[in-house]
Amino acid sequence: MSDLNTSMRDAADDVEQMLDKLLVLEGDPEDRVLEAMRYASLGGGKRVRPYLVLTSAAMFDVVRPAALRAAAALEMVHCYSLVHDDLPAMDNDDLRRGQPTCHIKFDEATAILAGDALLTRAFEVLSNPDTHDDPRVRADLVLALAQAAGEHGMVGGQMLDLLAETTTLSMPEITRMQRMKTGMLISVACEMGAILGHASEQAHRALQAYSHDLGLAFQIADDLLDLNATAEEMGKQTGKDADAGKSTFVSLMGEEKARNQAKILRDQAIEHLEMFGEKSDLLKQLATFVVDRRA
Amino acid sequence: MSDLNTSMRDAADDVEQMLDKLLVLEGDPEDRVLEAMRYASLGGGKRVRPYLVLTSAAMFDVVRPAALRAAAALEMVHCYSLVHDDLPAMDNDDLRRGQPTCHIKFDEATAILAGDALLTRAFEVLSNPDTHDDPRVRADLVLALAQAAGEHGMVGGQMLDLLAETTTLSMPEITRMQRMKTGMLISVACEMGAILGHASEQAHRALQAYSHDLGLAFQIADDLLDLNATAEEMGKQTGKDADAGKSTFVSLMGEEKARNQAKILRDQAIEHLEMFGEKSDLLKQLATFVVDRRA
Repeated sequence: MSDLNTSMRDAADDVEQMLDKLLVLEGDPEDRVLEAMRYASLGGGKRVRPYLVLTSAAMFDVVRPAALRAAAALEMVHCYSLVHDDLPAMDNDDLRRGQPTCHIKFDEATAILAGDALLTRAFEVLSNPDTHDDPRVRADLVLALAQAAGEHGMVGGQMLDLLAETTTLSMPEITRMQRMKTGMLISVACEMGAILGHASEQAHRALQAYSHDLGLAFQIADDLLDLNATAEEMGKQTGKDADAGKSTFVSLMGEEKARNQAKILRDQAIEHLEMFGEKSDLLKQLATFVVDRRA
Repeated sequence: MSDLNTSMRDAADDVEQMLDKLLVLEGDPEDRVLEAMRYASLGGGKRVRPYLVLTSAAMFDVVRPAALRAAAALEMVHCYSLVHDDLPAMDNDDLRRGQPTCHIKFDEATAILAGDALLTRAFEVLSNPDTHDDPRVRADLVLALAQAAGEHGMVGGQMLDLLAETTTLSMPEITRMQRMKTGMLISVACEMGAILGHASEQAHRALQAYSHDLGLAFQIADDLLDLNATAEEMGKQTGKDADAGKSTFVSLMGEEKARNQAKILRDQAIEHLEMFGEKSDLLKQLATFVVDRRA
């Protein structure tokens, strides 16, 4: 898997640089909100979502700078969601990637604003002509990301997750909740690569099928990690779902079945990529990485 | 001013209908977040920003449904900002338009998510082909709104407003803060009308100059109302700025000078519209309305 490791490390470095370039402190009196945006988005994470944008886009020979801007925009949305999720009124987390969460490092008001600004900025980046010459590509990127992140996507999933604190979810309900909360942002990552590359309808569908299975596999792997990893390994509090009595894939299926299910999803995901041949090797390796990762 | 009154009432009705149509409850388990989005955006306000979109767009003969979608998107951004501003960690307001604020009616977590979803949805609406056939128009609408609402626009202004609680601002600092916090969303309203109408560079500039002055006049009028109106008239707590020892246009200039300044800005704003002739009558009347309003 040395290909994948190198490729992911390069991508993470490039995304970091792009975010650093996009979120520039300009010596303005309002710089505090930019400092919080930078704190929330720089220097961390595996950058799985941006990696999916870059790797999908590369299959269609999209130039790297365009894909990097789209990848950075998507990562801004992911990071804003973490900042708001960590707030006292939401998950009330003090630790993220081994560091104080944004509202601990700054304050709640600044964290709320930094999240709002990261979300807003993502759409600014995508709609900016610097990202792509073709305005249809820009508008389609915005549309895809907004649909994945909104009330019938990530935010809707968050809402369901909050409601799950007081109700017990069935397997189909958990699957839908996780699909919205985590899966849709993973799916839109591949979709953005396809949009940037003017991919065929067939290629769009293949990537959708791949990312759908990948997203679920990712979430099951996350639940397993939450159960077994230490807070130190994860850089955040673990075992919170179990403590809160929340249903997860693992609590409903049991550990062994969940582990098998993740592997089935991984294999399915890889099969969906057949039409792309060798070009999709990295995406295939990523599916394995996602299921086998230890943090 | 009966023209203006009728026209504003019609616009407010149309915007209400459009928001109602865009934010549909579909019987999904996550509907609670949609209920909060509807609560935060339906049934209230003078709808000044959407009115500016509609009236600017009408000068360039933009079809009403396109302008209404853009107007509704802008209003979603305005409403999300109110929901987040009212949160305990921000202004901690219990009352808005005479009703409990969103986090009082629902809860803090739901209010945070509803705000996030309204902001996201605004960009979904603008980038959707239903809004305009020309993808360049859609991408430009997104770009303009994102720039006006982000860290160098409305959110940056909010940050400055928070910082102003512990420092005394000078006149230029207040002007800049208000320009960002309130003015830029007012300006982008006119800009969106111009984008929808493929307006000339000259027309863009004239509308920018108009909306710049209008925005400042609007804010000074707001400060004067905050000083003199009762909570009942305003439907929200008044006198908060003075109580918090915050500098405002009025506290720095004094009431009489502020009132004069608002009138000067009104007259300037109206002059900028000369090139449009009679077509701009409603925008001119609006400048007068904004300065003379009682709530």
